[in-house]
Amino acid sequence: MADKKLVEQITSREEDFAQWYTDVVKKAELTDYSSVKGFMVIRPAGYAIWENIMAALDSRFKATGVQNCSMPLLIPQSLLEKESEHVEGFAPEVAWVTSGGSKRLEERLCVRPTSEVLFCDYYSKVVKSYRDLPQLLNQWCSVVRWEKTTRPFLRTREFLWQEGHTVHATAEEAEERTLLMLDIYADVLENELAIPVVKGRKTDKEKFAGAIATYTVEALMHDGQALQCATSHNFGDGFAKAFQVQYLSKNNTVEPVHQTSWGITTRTIGALIMVHGDDSGLVLPPRIAPVQVNIIPIQQNKEGVLDKAFDLMNTLMDAGLRVKVDDSDKTPGFKFADSEVRGIPLRLEIGPKDIEAGQVVLVRRDTREKIVVSFENLVEESKKLLEQIQKDMYNRALTFQKERTTDAKSLDELVASLDKKPGFVRAMWCGCRECEEKLKEYSGITSRCIPAKQEKIADTCVVCGKPATKMVYWGRAY
Amino acid sequence: MADKKLVEQITSREEDFAQWYTDVVKKAELTDYSSVKGFMVIRPAGYAIWENIMAALDSRFKATGVQNCSMPLLIPQSLLEKESEHVEGFAPEVAWVTSGGSKRLEERLCVRPTSEVLFCDYYSKVVKSYRDLPQLLNQWCSVVRWEKTTRPFLRTREFLWQEGHTVHATAEEAEERTLLMLDIYADVLENELAIPVVKGRKTDKEKFAGAIATYTVEALMHDGQALQCATSHNFGDGFAKAFQVQYLSKNNTVEPVHQTSWGITTRTIGALIMVHGDDSGLVLPPRIAPVQVNIIPIQQNKEGVLDKAFDLMNTLMDAGLRVKVDDSDKTPGFKFADSEVRGIPLRLEIGPKDIEAGQVVLVRRDTREKIVVSFENLVEESKKLLEQIQKDMYNRALTFQKERTTDAKSLDELVASLDKKPGFVRAMWCGCRECEEKLKEYSGITSRCIPAKQEKIADTCVVCGKPATKMVYWGRAY
Repeated sequence: MADKKLVEQITSREEDFAQWYTDVVKKAELTDYSSVKGFMVIRPAGYAIWENIMAALDSRFKATGVQNCSMPLLIPQSLLEKESEHVEGFAPEVAWVTSGGSKRLEERLCVRPTSEVLFCDYYSKVVKSYRDLPQLLNQWCSVVRWEKTTRPFLRTREFLWQEGHTVHATAEEAEERTLLMLDIYADVLENELAIPVVKGRKTDKEKFAGAIATYTVEALMHDGQALQCATSHNFGDGFAKAFQVQYLSKNNTVEPVHQTSWGITTRTIGALIMVHGDDSGLVLPPRIAPVQVNIIPIQQNKEGVLDKAFDLMNTLMDAGLRVKVDDSDKTPGFKFADSEVRGIPLRLEIGPKDIEAGQVVLVRRDTREKIVVSFENLVEESKKLLEQIQKDMYNRALTFQKERTTDAKSLDELVASLDKKPGFVRAMWCGCRECEEKLKEYSGITSRCIPAKQEKIADTCVVCGKPATKMVYWGRAY
Repeated sequence: MADKKLVEQITSREEDFAQWYTDVVKKAELTDYSSVKGFMVIRPAGYAIWENIMAALDSRFKATGVQNCSMPLLIPQSLLEKESEHVEGFAPEVAWVTSGGSKRLEERLCVRPTSEVLFCDYYSKVVKSYRDLPQLLNQWCSVVRWEKTTRPFLRTREFLWQEGHTVHATAEEAEERTLLMLDIYADVLENELAIPVVKGRKTDKEKFAGAIATYTVEALMHDGQALQCATSHNFGDGFAKAFQVQYLSKNNTVEPVHQTSWGITTRTIGALIMVHGDDSGLVLPPRIAPVQVNIIPIQQNKEGVLDKAFDLMNTLMDAGLRVKVDDSDKTPGFKFADSEVRGIPLRLEIGPKDIEAGQVVLVRRDTREKIVVSFENLVEESKKLLEQIQKDMYNRALTFQKERTTDAKSLDELVASLDKKPGFVRAMWCGCRECEEKLKEYSGITSRCIPAKQEKIADTCVVCGKPATKMVYWGRAY
């Protein structure tokens, strides 16, 4: 039995989802508050998840020719202000450095909120000819945006992310890259994080400051709210013209480049928690879990128990699994609960009786199913179970997403549906910003995305009744 | 023949070592200047080296139980000022954030110059009992120190590094950890970067602000100047007392923890350049080289040449090597020079005649030796050659270090030796700070370290003539 003392400190999801989230983040030791408001410490258990997410993304990026680099942390005010739409979007939420080395600076420097202008400045120097294109760069770093209200992972004044920035000879190539990176995000979210997503384009109202098109992957959290998990932007040649990033073409003409950027943040850890977690804590998909099998010795002071536990750990690790033994001086009940809070996919119980019988007990974190496995079959069975858990977690999340996605033909239907069963609502839209603003004011509903695969649900816009041009996914979002 | 046009742009080492360094950094496309003075862009070729250095270190750290985490970028002024020696050391060179989100901040926040105080703040909250010890954390990040004069990699206002911070129950354990991490740095520098080092303790004058002991690994550059490559600090319980990081011991007493920190920076890339580079550019040790084999097709437009080049690339990559094909529309001569500038350990030439003869030509970057190898033996020979290059590079650097290390029994001898043949001079020291200061003022000479393995070169201090207590490595340093 899992120790209730530990579990009871987590508020139930149904009772108070926001408090449940805070409790899980704390109990699973993912983050801690820091001495600067809105800045978080990402603790080892949280950071190890991020390391696995980074690895899954980084190898995929590199397979498409992307290289990593490092741009400066600080941006001069004059550089930030070079592209007008962009600066309007970011200037209100940046932090300013005004002195360095005990001297007042001649020009203020902002801590990067994103690095478009730095990459543009760099590309304007290194791109000369069509031979220099494309440039496919990425960096892993942190950025600062002075948000008013913050929550661990979901909205923090500093967050970790990657930002890819590419420049291309043609508009077609830039659009292709924008969509390719969106596909990589969807692939990692679905196949590594077991989070089903809806892919699509943002409306003009929701797109990134300075972009001609923003694409997004959106997921549904357990409370039915949507979370934007990653975005990919096509900038066209707007930045290129502002920063004079241009190249000599094969025909000897000077042309502006076509640019993209794309990013995913530590916010995805928030998504992992809110899609898969339950009232006992975190539930991590095996592919991204820092520890996949947690070995808990029963009566560990009895001769041979700990030795056997570490033997099994070595056997499983040799097979490529990530394993630990919890040999702390806590009770097994406490360890079971602790293993659940931390979301470790499989717990392995081994005690004197098991050793005698030549077997162990495996317990799935997601379903709590118990499986007795002989020593000989342990590696094979553990691998099979981890794969099964990964699949089942994805499928459960997909079933939830489907159940929570409805169609609406009128405004009343749309709002009623989201009020009654929060999720995605698919509904038609005329294409004008006023209708979006009306929906947001009226009921906090925002357009999540315009999927590439369009269906015709009705002829008219769900808000204004004018002829519809697009089917849109609507929802309330984090 | 390598194309001279590219090579000629590099100043020779003997003519002007500082300019040679700048030329190599530029021609090998390692960094670029940014729009903020003293801040650098690390370009893909430079960053890929850093990625390999990080991987070599990170796996070794983790093997000793270290976990990664992420601390905030910014530190409140009051927190920075909590440990007096530490703040004295860093306050003059920090950058201050004074406004965020369009509002003036109530308290200034500095961009972290190092994160001791953040880790202390965190540990003071999570460490309660002896059960919580040790805590072995590390983070990979960038820090900002407002240096007056800067040079790419060697001294920049922002640099990338890792900073490990650990807390322990006993003084012995902290000292053990301090030395263990120093050994890891030495291991990576010697066995991965092929840079021989001298390990030792810093004098009180040279130690880190707030530490009771600082250990260092020092290397000699090709111009005979020393470079501090990494440091490991034992803080004793000074920080612990200032920040009240304390724990309940097994005997039920409240005790302060004993703390360490240890770091290595992108400066090591500067060391790689200055230890191994030559007048044709960079020379990278195979274990750390992002590309180990550069395949250069000869008459690449002839049928079958490029196909064969990519075939060979795949064969070598399947064997675990890092390989690229330079199929750009440049001449082979240009590509040879380019491959040399970038320091790629092996260049592989393959043309129609080679294909006919079933062979390739391999050329070592370090010695320029040409080796003809049959297709069948290519994988085996390439691996063997890369290992040989790694060994030879280390041994050449070690021979140089030995040749440049002399003993001195008097001040005149010490200074004359460093003037004539820059390098390390081993000489005795009384242990007082005044003698160090005198040497520095007199001739820019600093103590590099006090090695654990002491020898008695003379009875008296090389500066003041009083009884000697230690043998010290002296030199002029970057």
